[in-house]
Order: sequence, then C-alpha cells, then structure tokens
Amino acid sequence: MRQIKIVVPVATAAWNELILEDMGRYKAADTELAIVNIEKGPESIECTYDVAWAELFTVQECEKAEAEGCDGVIIYCFGDPGLRAAKEKLNIPIVGINEPAVHFASMLGNRFSIMAVGPDTVNRAMLADNVLLYGLESRCASIRFLSMPVLEIERQKDKQARRLFEEATVAVEEDGADTIVLGCGSMFGVEKKVRNELNVPVVVPGPVALRTCEALIDLGLAQSKRFFAAPPSKKRVM
Amino acid sequence: MRQIKIVVPVATAAWNELILEDMGRYKAADTELAIVNIEKGPESIECTYDVAWAELFTVQECEKAEAEGCDGVIIYCFGDPGLRAAKEKLNIPIVGINEPAVHFASMLGNRFSIMAVGPDTVNRAMLADNVLLYGLESRCASIRFLSMPVLEIERQKDKQARRLFEEATVAVEEDGADTIVLGCGSMFGVEKKVRNELNVPVVVPGPVALRTCEALIDLGLAQSKRFFAAPPSKKRVM
Amino acid sequence: MRQIKIVVPVATAAWNELILEDMGRYKAADTELAIVNIEKGPESIECTYDVAWAELFTVQECEKAEAEGCDGVIIYCFGDPGLRAAKEKLNIPIVGINEPAVHFASMLGNRFSIMAVGPDTVNRAMLADNVLLYGLESRCASIRFLSMPVLEIERQKDKQARRLFEEATVAVEEDGADTIVLGCGSMFGVEKKVRNELNVPVVVPGPVALRTCEALIDLGLAQSKRFFAAPPSKKRVM
Amino acid sequence: MRQIKIVVPVATAAWNELILEDMGRYKAADTELAIVNIEKGPESIECTYDVAWAELFTVQECEKAEAEGCDGVIIYCFGDPGLRAAKEKLNIPIVGINEPAVHFASMLGNRFSIMAVGPDTVNRAMLADNVLLYGLESRCASIRFLSMPVLEIERQKDKQARRLFEEATVAVEEDGADTIVLGCGSMFGVEKKVRNELNVPVVVPGPVALRTCEALIDLGLAQSKRFFAAPPSKKRVM
Amino acid sequence: MRQIKIVVPVATAAWNELILEDMGRYKAADTELAIVNIEKGPESIECTYDVAWAELFTVQECEKAEAEGCDGVIIYCFGDPGLRAAKEKLNIPIVGINEPAVHFASMLGNRFSIMAVGPDTVNRAMLADNVLLYGLESRCASIRFLSMPVLEIERQKDKQARRLFEEATVAVEEDGADTIVLGCGSMFGVEKKVRNELNVPVVVPGPVALRTCEALIDLGLAQSKRFFAAPPSKKRVM
Amino acid sequence: MRQIKIVVPVATAAWNELILEDMGRYKAADTELAIVNIEKGPESIECTYDVAWAELFTVQECEKAEAEGCDGVIIYCFGDPGLRAAKEKLNIPIVGINEPAVHFASMLGNRFSIMAVGPDTVNRAMLADNVLLYGLESRCASIRFLSMPVLEIERQKDKQARRLFEEATVAVEEDGADTIVLGCGSMFGVEKKVRNELNVPVVVPGPVALRTCEALIDLGLAQSKRFFAAPPSKKRVM
Repeated sequence: MRQIKIVVPVATAAWNELILEDMGRYKAADTELAIVNIEKGPESIECTYDVAWAELFTVQECEKAEAEGCDGVIIYCFGDPGLRAAKEKLNIPIVGINEPAVHFASMLGNRFSIMAVGPDTVNRAMLADNVLLYGLESRCASIRFLSMPVLEIERQKDKQARRLFEEATVAVEEDGADTIVLGCGSMFGVEKKVRNELNVPVVVPGPVALRTCEALIDLGLAQSKRFFAAPPSKKRVM
Repeated sequence: MRQIKIVVPVATAAWNELILEDMGRYKAADTELAIVNIEKGPESIECTYDVAWAELFTVQECEKAEAEGCDGVIIYCFGDPGLRAAKEKLNIPIVGINEPAVHFASMLGNRFSIMAVGPDTVNRAMLADNVLLYGLESRCASIRFLSMPVLEIERQKDKQARRLFEEATVAVEEDGADTIVLGCGSMFGVEKKVRNELNVPVVVPGPVALRTCEALIDLGLAQSKRFFAAPPSKKRVM
Repeated sequence: MRQIKIVVPVATAAWNELILEDMGRYKAADTELAIVNIEKGPESIECTYDVAWAELFTVQECEKAEAEGCDGVIIYCFGDPGLRAAKEKLNIPIVGINEPAVHFASMLGNRFSIMAVGPDTVNRAMLADNVLLYGLESRCASIRFLSMPVLEIERQKDKQARRLFEEATVAVEEDGADTIVLGCGSMFGVEKKVRNELNVPVVVPGPVALRTCEALIDLGLAQSKRFFAAPPSKKRVM
Repeated sequence: MRQIKIVVPVATAAWNELILEDMGRYKAADTELAIVNIEKGPESIECTYDVAWAELFTVQECEKAEAEGCDGVIIYCFGDPGLRAAKEKLNIPIVGINEPAVHFASMLGNRFSIMAVGPDTVNRAMLADNVLLYGLESRCASIRFLSMPVLEIERQKDKQARRLFEEATVAVEEDGADTIVLGCGSMFGVEKKVRNELNVPVVVPGPVALRTCEALIDLGLAQSKRFFAAPPSKKRVM
Repeated sequence: MRQIKIVVPVATAAWNELILEDMGRYKAADTELAIVNIEKGPESIECTYDVAWAELFTVQECEKAEAEGCDGVIIYCFGDPGLRAAKEKLNIPIVGINEPAVHFASMLGNRFSIMAVGPDTVNRAMLADNVLLYGLESRCASIRFLSMPVLEIERQKDKQARRLFEEATVAVEEDGADTIVLGCGSMFGVEKKVRNELNVPVVVPGPVALRTCEALIDLGLAQSKRFFAAPPSKKRVM
Repeated sequence: MRQIKIVVPVATAAWNELILEDMGRYKAADTELAIVNIEKGPESIECTYDVAWAELFTVQECEKAEAEGCDGVIIYCFGDPGLRAAKEKLNIPIVGINEPAVHFASMLGNRFSIMAVGPDTVNRAMLADNVLLYGLESRCASIRFLSMPVLEIERQKDKQARRLFEEATVAVEEDGADTIVLGCGSMFGVEKKVRNELNVPVVVPGPVALRTCEALIDLGLAQSKRFFAAPPSKKRVM
C-alpha cells in the first residue's frame, strides 16, 4: 500500500474534489491518496510572485507529509512551487506536475508547447524559468496563454475549451509543436478536441505526475541528495 | 488488462527469463507481459553496427505485436534499436529502455552518468548519439564503460559489480554526476552498493520503461504522429 | 587512381544513371566511380522506418566495397542510412551526402534550410535527427518539404522545381535562411532559379559528398576509430 | 539624490554594518543607502530550502521599499531570493547580487567560477539554478565551495581566505576559469591574494550590484514588464 | 578623478559633440571624458568589412589612451571594433558599447532584440557574431534593421524614429522580444515612443558602457589577462 | 584551369615556399596556385591583437586577388584573420584554414581538440572565438598550446613534434578528444606519430582548405551574400 499526499499549493480547497476524482481514475489500486491545501498563501498560482507567496507554506506541508509516513508527495500546481526546496528537505520522492509532464512530452515528440491559463497580463517568467531549469528549452516550441484567470476556467468551461483549441492550433501550425502540454492542474476534460482534431498527444500533467510518483516509490528512487542535499540545521523563524 | 510485448532485440533467448522475472516484480497486477526475441540479428548490442543488424528485425517484431492487439511495446535494449522507426510505424505506445531512463534520471538530479557495459573497444557512438537525440546532452555528466562483453556479465557477476562501482565512483567524484543510469538491460541486482555507498539514485532502465509504458497506455498517450508520421506505403523487399 | 564506390541504399536502380552522370561531372580525372544498389530494402527513403529497412543491406554493401579494395565509399541518400554503423565497421573513409552538405552549408552562411522532398505525410524525424547528430542544430533555420513522393519527382520535373522555389522562398523570407541545402540525392538540375532569384548558395549534396570523399582519401583521413570503434566480433545472423 | 534600499534577506542584522561600510565605499556621492533585514526567515541562506524560507518576507520588504519612495532595491544575498517575484511586483529597478556579478564576470573573461561558501553538505542546486536562469551556463567553468557555514566565515577570516585561495586555484588550474566570482555577500576583504597571485579579476558581488542599481536608476531602466508582468490582483493570505 | 577616453572608431568627428553631450548627462561628477576619432578608417561602421578597416587604428588609439594615463577606455561603436584585441593589449579596463548593452538587457528581461541601423544591404554578420561571442545568443530574439545609412539618421530624425518604432513593434509582437537594445551609438533621443507605447525597457548603449566603465575602474576590475593575455612582442609593421 | 591565390597574412615570406610545396602535393592538376604575403602587419599571428594588425592588409590582398581574376582565395593562417570581412567584400569563394578544418574534423569524429602553437602567454581568445563563431563549440573537446613562438617551430622541429605529441596525448586521454586538428598553418610533417600512436585522425588545415576551395569553385558555390552582404560604398581612408 502506497500513501501519496497531494499538496495543493493554494489557500482554497475549491479544486480538491475535482483533483481527487481525476487522480483517482489513474492511481494504482493499492495507492492511497490524501489531499491537503496550504492554509496561507495565494488563491491561485499564475506568476512567480504567487510562487513566492506559496512556497514556504507548501514546503511545510510536504515536510508534514513525510513526517506522517507518506511514501511520496505531489505538489499539485504547474508552477511547481517549492519543488526544489522540498527535494532538498525530503528524503521520500517528491514530484511537481510540470516536471514529469514536460519529460513525458519530450518522450512523445520533438517539440512541445505549453498551454498556460492566466492571467490577462501574461506572466511568462514562471513557466519559462521552469522549462529552462528542467533542461528542456530546446524541446519547447512555445508557451501560450489562454489569458483567463485560473479561478474562472471551471466556471467558463466552454470558453476554456475553445481558447485551448485556438492556442493549441497556433502552437501546432505556427510554432512547430507536435505535442501539447496542459500548463495548469485545473484543466479537466477539455483536451479531447485538441487530441482528435489536431492529431497530437495532449499531456495532462496531474495523472502523469501521479504515475511518476508511484513509479519512483516502487522502484526505490528519489531525488539525488548529492544535488538536492539536505539543508543544514540553523535557526529559521516564522 | 494491459498487454505489453517486450521485444528483446538480440538473436538469443538467453536473457528472457531474467528479464521477465525482473519486470514481473514491477508490473501492475493487471499487466500481462509477453517476451520475444528477434530471430535474426546480433547476439548482443554493443555498438551502432549491432543496432544496424538488429533494427529491421526489431521493428518487424514490434509491428507484429501491434497486429496481435498488444497495448504497448518495450524494445528491451539500452541502445534503443529501431525505436524511432517503430514510433513511426506503430500507433500504440512504444518505448525503449534508454529514453525513459535518462528522462527519469533528469527528474532526480542535475547530472547523470551512464554506466555502459562493453565491449573492450569502447564504442561510444551508440550511446552518445542517443543522449543527443533525446535532448539531454546538457544533463549528461559522462558515459563510462565497464569494458566487459555484455555476454559475459551475468557469468562474472562479481566483476560486473566491482567494475560498476569503480566507474560510478569516478562518475560521481570526477565527472560531477549526482545520478547513475545503468546503461544496459542485462544488469540485474548489482546496483545496491552504488546506491548505498555513493548515496546516489541508480536508475535501472527496464522497470522504468515498463512503468512508463503502462502509464502511457492508461493515459491514452502515444508518440506524436506529427513528428513520427506514419511511413508512406511503398515497396519494401526483404 | 582513387576508386570510390557509390552505394545507393534503395532497392531500385532507377536513379543510378542520373547519379553517375551528375557525379561524373564533378569527380577528379583520376577517380573511378562504381555504383551499386541494395538488393533488398525500400524503393525510396523518406522516413526513419525506411532507414531501418535499408540500413543493414547498405552497411553490407559498404563492407563489400572495402573488401573489394575501394578507397572510399559514399552512401548516396540524404537520410545517411547506415552511415554511423559503416563508420564503425570500415577503415576506409565513408561519407553520406547529408553530413558533408550541412557542414559545407555552415561554411557558406549563418543559417541553412533543408529542402526535403516527400512524402505527403511530412516525416520530420529522419532529417531533424541528422541535423542534431551532426551538431548543427543551431545553424539550421528550418527543414521544409516539397511534399512529393521521391519516386515522382523526376517525372514531375516542373512541379519539383516550382515546389522547391516556393519552399526555398519561405525559408529565406520567413525562416531566416541564407543558404539552401537540397535534402534529397534525386534532385537534378533544379537549383538554378533558387540560386539566381533568391541570391543564396544552393548546396547540392551529391557532388559535395564526392569532393569530400576524394579529399579524405588524398589527405589520408578517415573516421576516428576512437569514436567509431570497430565492432567487436560476435555471432550475427541474417 | 538616489535612494536605494538594501534588503538583507536573513533574520539577523549581524552583517548589516559590514555591508553598509563596504557598499558605502563604492556608492555615488548622491546615493543614500538604507538597509533592512527580514524579521522572519532563516539566519543565513545556503540552499534552495533557505530561499523558500526567505522569499516571501524578502519580497514584502521590497514592496515596502517601493511604497516608501525608494528609487531602487538591492536584495543582498548571492542566492537572489525572491528576485524574480520582486521583479514582477515592483516597477522600480531591483537587482540581486548574483545576477549582476555573473554578467560583469562574463564581460571580463571567457569562463568564470563561483566561489560559494557553505555549508558542509554542498548544496549545489541554488547556485546552479541561478546560473542557468541567467543564461550563462556556457560561461560558467565551475561552482566550488569553501564548505564553511556562512555564519562562521567572518569569525574564521584566515580559514576563509585560505579556503578561497585553495578553491580558486583549482578553478583556474583545473576547471579552466579565467575570472572568479565571490559567491556570497558576506566575504569582505579576502580577494586580494586570489587577484594578485592567480592573476584573475575577482568580482565582489555587492558593489557590482550597487553600481548596476545606480546605473539603472539614472538611465531610467527597470525590469521588463513584458516578461516580469505585474501579478494579477487576488486574495493572498499570510 | 577618473579619466575615460572615448575612442570613436570612424574617420569623422561628426558625432563627437553629440556623443559628449549625451555621455556628459550620465557620467559621474568626478569623471573626466575625452573623445578622439581615428584618423584613418571608414566614415561609419555598418558591417564586418568596416570593422576590418577600423580595427587597427582603433586599437592604436586605445593604446595611446593607456599610455597617456587614462583609467579606462570606451570604444564607441556598436560593432565593438577592435575590442577583443584591445582587451589583450591594454591593462586598464576597456569596454565596447555593444557588450555592456546586451548584458544589461539580459538582466532586465528574457529576450532582447537589437535595432540595427544600416545600410540597405542588411549586413547581419557583424552583429550576429557579437551576440554569439558574448554568449547571449539564447537571449537574443532578433536583430532588426532600420535600413538607413548611419550617416543619414541624424539628418532624417523623424524617419529614424518612425523606423525604430516599426521594427521594435515587430520585434515585440512577432519575435518575442521583451527588451529593446539600440544597435548603434548614433541614435539620440529617439527611444521614448518605443519605451512608452510598447512598454519595454530600451537600452541605449553609450551610457550603459560609460557606467560600466566607471564601475570597473572604481572596483579595480579589468579584462582577465588569463583569457585576454598580453600579446607577445614581435615585429609588427604599419 | 582554376586559379587560387593563397594570401599569407604575415609580413614575412619565410613560410611561402614551405606552404606552396605542401599545398602543391594536394592540389588538383588543373589548379594554379599563387602565393602572396601582406606587406605590412605582424610577423606571425598568435592572438587577437595580431589579427587586428593583419586584418585590413589581408582583406586588401584578397580584393586584389579577385580583381586579378582569381577563382578563389585562401587566407592561410589558422586565426582566419579578415575572413568574414573578405567574405562580405568578395564574390568569389574565400576560405580560411581554420573553418574548413574544424568542419572536416566534425565529420570524422565526435570531439576534436585543436593543437595551437604559441606563444608562451597562451592567448586563448583568438581560437576560442573562432570555434564559437563556426558553431562547433559543442564538438570541441579542448584547445591546447605547444607554447612555442610560431617563428621558432620550424627551427625546433624535434621540440615541435614532441610537444605536439604530449599535448595531443592529454587531449585524447583527458579531454575526450577523438580527432586532432593542427591549430597552425606552419606545422609541416609532424603529425604522423600522433596519428599512429594515438590512433586518431589528424587534420592538417592547409590541404583541407585547398580542397574545400577547389570544391567550392567547381560546384559554383561561394559565401552567402544574404549573410555576408556586400559592404555599402562609403569613404574609407587608409
């Protein structure tokens, strides 16, 4: 029995049920999923500033999960907030949902495009930085934005699907993408039209992260402590 | 029930039992594994020339697997012979064991080293080319060789383990590796000392490929036909 | 007297006369050219799958050429099928027609575009992989396709020339190319309009390969056996 | 009169006086410097985990500085914690001390090495990530560690200088560095021996950041709001 | 008191007054600026051929400046002619105006575009080469040309401003630039519209070079003599 | 009949006879070689400063060659001084001896090392810059120096051969080179021991340049005027 804690790094439980439902569809029979939010922090994560607000609270939830005896942790947000800090602090495997998604996309095609969500202001830094850190910039055709606030997309499902299709079409036809990555953990059930009409694989990040986390647990693998070395002890005040 | 065919691209069944046993340990309960060799081709794959000998026969076995109704295929050799050709020809997901291994390694650390096996002549081209094709050259600290013929390593288990530890030590201490990838599908049960004494994750490629293949099947993903487009019909004689 | 064997890696002699005629125009007076096809394999090479079909038969023809006492070998196809395997097996210099062409193009300008031929399905993997392997991805502005089956282009010479000009124009005006590389060994006498009206050098790959091969022979150079080491002896069944 | 706020992203004022003294030496006559710590967070920053602890508090101090009417802000720590988030939130120019240092080093030579301080556990991720994000990985010869806790170095000045010289010597003689960057804001007055005996420029990051910040203010420049776009309004709880 | 010599590497004093006026606005109170032209060479620098004409005379003026006791030298042309040769020959800090501009641009955003001036023939080599040499190709979105002879732009100020705005608009909207670099030292007072209407930082290279040079002088920094080693003595005839 | 002018960019004819003799061995029967020095400039080219001294005089000799009706030009020095300026000015094909050598080396192996000559001060910039400009940095294992003045090597032939072998050995055994490039046009007949004992191809740059130049002439190819556009007319004083 594997116990995996899903840490949703936003100060709202609004997405939890949808996440659990979606992840439940892909988990192994003997995986037990728990889900938790951060109590402080931003309501949604759409830029590096939001990441800075979420990071510490997220890492602390990850630490709690390890202390509780979980076998693995998933930080469920495409910004991967706190991921690298948590990789240092934890010994159990911890994954974000961005990093596994772009690696799987790289195995499926030659160039992927990320379909980010919001906001209107098009904050590119957070996602561009992640692609760079994960070493896959040469495989990334583009990062495109639906330009909808994350907190709106579930309510405006039709617009979400339409905007996704529009941007994915440009990614494929102009940017040279052959694979699409959904750039947000809150896009549920909108990928079919892209998959079918554009004839490209669409990587939905949450389930890929789940399967990666389960695999790491079963294979006895976790982040390298030679790169993500344990933080030294010191006074840290909160 | 998922049906996955393991194609071992060498003209010998010598490894099949060991492979099935090892993969069986990590497969999902509802995965059914079948294994097959190529009937013609080389006895082992240690260089690009061996790949050229194995490639067509391997791809044909993969086609057969799809025709039989398999849900996914694993080409079980770290040279990934025929992988890209098979990605073009097949519509079901197909993975090698090198490509998933180096992507998983990239998620675990910053720089991985590949521990290749043989032969004495140190044929670098095959593995160096794969790292480049998979877009991960900047993450690869080194490719090191045990310099033992692949066909000898199971018989000389002690030497295998010793040479692995020696080369992994140099990879970590001199080349800057923080993660080790076993560069051959025929190394069984020799990674513990490296993992424990060098304090690095050791990626064993076979099981990682299996879990990746299962995930792709379950998530409805396969290679992008926009990059790996179906080959046009034409006369091909054998 | 140099003896160079041209191995045409398709199972048809349809192109041989045209190739010999074209190459004859550029060879040194004291070069003797011989030409041979593979007896098995595909009729044309338009994707990685075709490469897999041609590779072994091609390498065997190369081996035969060395055994016969040739001084150098040219694998005459822009997919360079079997090239790296043959580099391992042979000691005499062996060249493809893609590799010299893109290196010459890199000496002439800053960014080259490759004008590939077919088929309709636009199989990008074969050519994209070669550019990457040859270390010149940063110099490649684009790979564009005439989208005509290779076996049709000689019969539809006007369409071939028109499509070439159309795609080269886009390469220069939109992709930033300053140099054009013909991405197929079967395009004869169609480059003038591109050269003159677009004011760019057009690299025709066959003659460049011939002159490279002659130079290597005369200069006593051949592929490095430290990278393309000789394959170890082993049982290989066909 | 320029007003620049130095935000020291650690929960101790131990370094403030030394910093002000050092920066005072290089500031323009008409620059007014103020310095502030974060009240919560870690005592020192030696890894990504420390960054996660410091980030939010640091960004908030930066926001306060802008609200107070400062003309520019310096986040005074070589980890550049919160820098990219603050670049999004602020409109006035904000610099870290790592980013200007590595760009100046790139103008002085071909390959720089960073001399990081601690701790014993050699946490590479924080500094390796920054080099990558700043686009200068190809110019970085190595990151080397004094392996002393940051909080000890001022007390063990002799050891600090000795270890610095040792590591810089290896950087120059073995790693190919021609320029040295001090990888911590708390190394004062220890660079002379390296400069003189190794004959390399030694970039001390604090003063470089100060001069960069002054220049940006005077030239009317600040971070691009097209990349570091202003964060959207939303509920963020602390 | 810092003494900085501005070497204008063209055989005309036409720009000197404008340069001095502009630089005077940004210099420190205790910086003394002197300006000098080369007596031989081209009237303007718009291509690599012009650089070849200017280089030796430029380097000799730089040597003279050092001999006269200057503290620093600025080669005032965006082609940076003779910069690397002068870095070898001189021990005092020497900067071009291209190199500091693109490093500052890289600190401000993610992708910069260079707005070059002339001539009509669009000579890309000079500027493309510099971006590559400075290690910032991955940060350069595009190099665009006003396609006006440099010697015309001051006389046709309106056209200059209009063309700049046109090209900068394309750079931002199509090439993905978030930061603009003026690619010529002779563009004075034309950047405001770009800055305000396109909402991007516009890096004017002259003042950035001046502030960089002053900073290097004050911080005791100069080009690394381990990379830019002093030229050996030998007979050199002119 | 092809007429090729060899421009030796040093103000001494000391090497001309040796060069002509060596090149004569590899030229086509119907190639007519002429050789010329620059009358002003440095005696040898060992650093970027020497390049600046030689460049204009070299380009002018190249222009003269074109005016005289030559079919191609070779700038005979591994620093390739003036090459890119001459590519702009000339319409006939012009090659250096560095650029063809590193491209041929890239076709022969995976990583080449350049064996530079002098001087003692190890001026890395000139050769490192060229590798970068030619787009082959990822293929260059190292640049190593014999640390002998170029003007001494012919007189100290034994030392030259010994030092070459020493440095090539380190390049192969420690730097990972599989191919050696002689990094100077004045090394004659010293490569055999490296070739035979280290089992690597040794690229001698002069003859490779000659054969490249002949091929370009015969194939109707020359540098792209879309990248190396003709310099605009203007006043240039000398």
